[in-house]
Amino acid sequence: MNFSSKVLEEAVQALSLLPGVGKKSALRLALHLVQDNNNKSEKIAEALTRLAHDVKECSVCHNLSDHDTCEICTNSSRPQRQLCVVESVRDVMAIEDTQQFNGRYHVLGGVISPLEGVGPSDIHIDTLIERVKMGTVEEIIMAISPTIEGETTIYYISKMLASFEVKISIIARGVSFGGDLEYADELTLGRSITSRIPYQSPS
Amino acid sequence: MNFSSKVLEEAVQALSLLPGVGKKSALRLALHLVQDNNNKSEKIAEALTRLAHDVKECSVCHNLSDHDTCEICTNSSRPQRQLCVVESVRDVMAIEDTQQFNGRYHVLGGVISPLEGVGPSDIHIDTLIERVKMGTVEEIIMAISPTIEGETTIYYISKMLASFEVKISIIARGVSFGGDLEYADELTLGRSITSRIPYQSPS
Repeated sequence: MNFSSKVLEEAVQALSLLPGVGKKSALRLALHLVQDNNNKSEKIAEALTRLAHDVKECSVCHNLSDHDTCEICTNSSRPQRQLCVVESVRDVMAIEDTQQFNGRYHVLGGVISPLEGVGPSDIHIDTLIERVKMGTVEEIIMAISPTIEGETTIYYISKMLASFEVKISIIARGVSFGGDLEYADELTLGRSITSRIPYQSPS
Repeated sequence: MNFSSKVLEEAVQALSLLPGVGKKSALRLALHLVQDNNNKSEKIAEALTRLAHDVKECSVCHNLSDHDTCEICTNSSRPQRQLCVVESVRDVMAIEDTQQFNGRYHVLGGVISPLEGVGPSDIHIDTLIERVKMGTVEEIIMAISPTIEGETTIYYISKMLASFEVKISIIARGVSFGGDLEYADELTLGRSITSRIPYQSPS
């Protein structure tokens, strides 16, 4: 591509660093920004500079936070006895959005995946065990994706925690709400039959 | 969405200012950037800050440039007698990429579109006429999209330039290279028959 402006060319190169944004999309974005009168470029630049400098990882649960310890870990009204173990920060947000869990979290930052070279020491299992050792945790809820890697991670953690007096549960897997039985895969449907629960009529 | 970090939330809001990027995509981009170790955030922030401050519009042809006058307008080896009139900066890049044109450009910054409230005074027709008045331009090549708005713009400009001794040409419209006659629309196929050119065998 022939750029009439070096600055424009550099902006296109920078924007194509974003995942899923190629050269052509980056050019479209850059031309949009340069022709925009609402200071979008500056707003985005400022937000990304702060993102690079001011976002911290919570020292307790590894969630993202503006402080050394995140708001969930410092919130004394959330009981410490329930600990929800998740793969990523995105999962914390998803579970918080459901408003169905009021305990604390532990973000692993990945799952064990020998194929991708991710071993138990590459994710935050050590700090999880430290937290359990402190004795306040009564239940660990594994909210990890039902994939082979996820199952491996759950199995590994359960073995590591076998000597502690802590209840380990996993989130229910089954047919999605609004889902059609016909199109559910065999494994999911099979599991949702074996893990059936007593019917409670809404009274 | 429940954000554990205000800074992250602001970054998501800023990124969703980009065209075609919604809240979910913006969150994906922001989480990618915050977990990236190659300073992508800072690189993008720096490039966008420069984009906001250092890109200028060429005072002659309205192309984007790092200087007051763009490199094409200051290049004395490009003849001033041929002037290619285009809609946008993107079109200058597209034509430059073909390496088939060595003259100068004039970027209108849009086309006349009564439906969208764009009149002749909203695009750079006045500066085009000023350039023609200077007497160095011999041919104006209209490289404008063959849409109703584009045709209107070409017609308007040709009327405005009727009193000047300047040749006006439009780029050829016809069947695309590699295109299939069967799938060409009627108007394009009809025009490419009426504008047929003598066959020159490659000798």
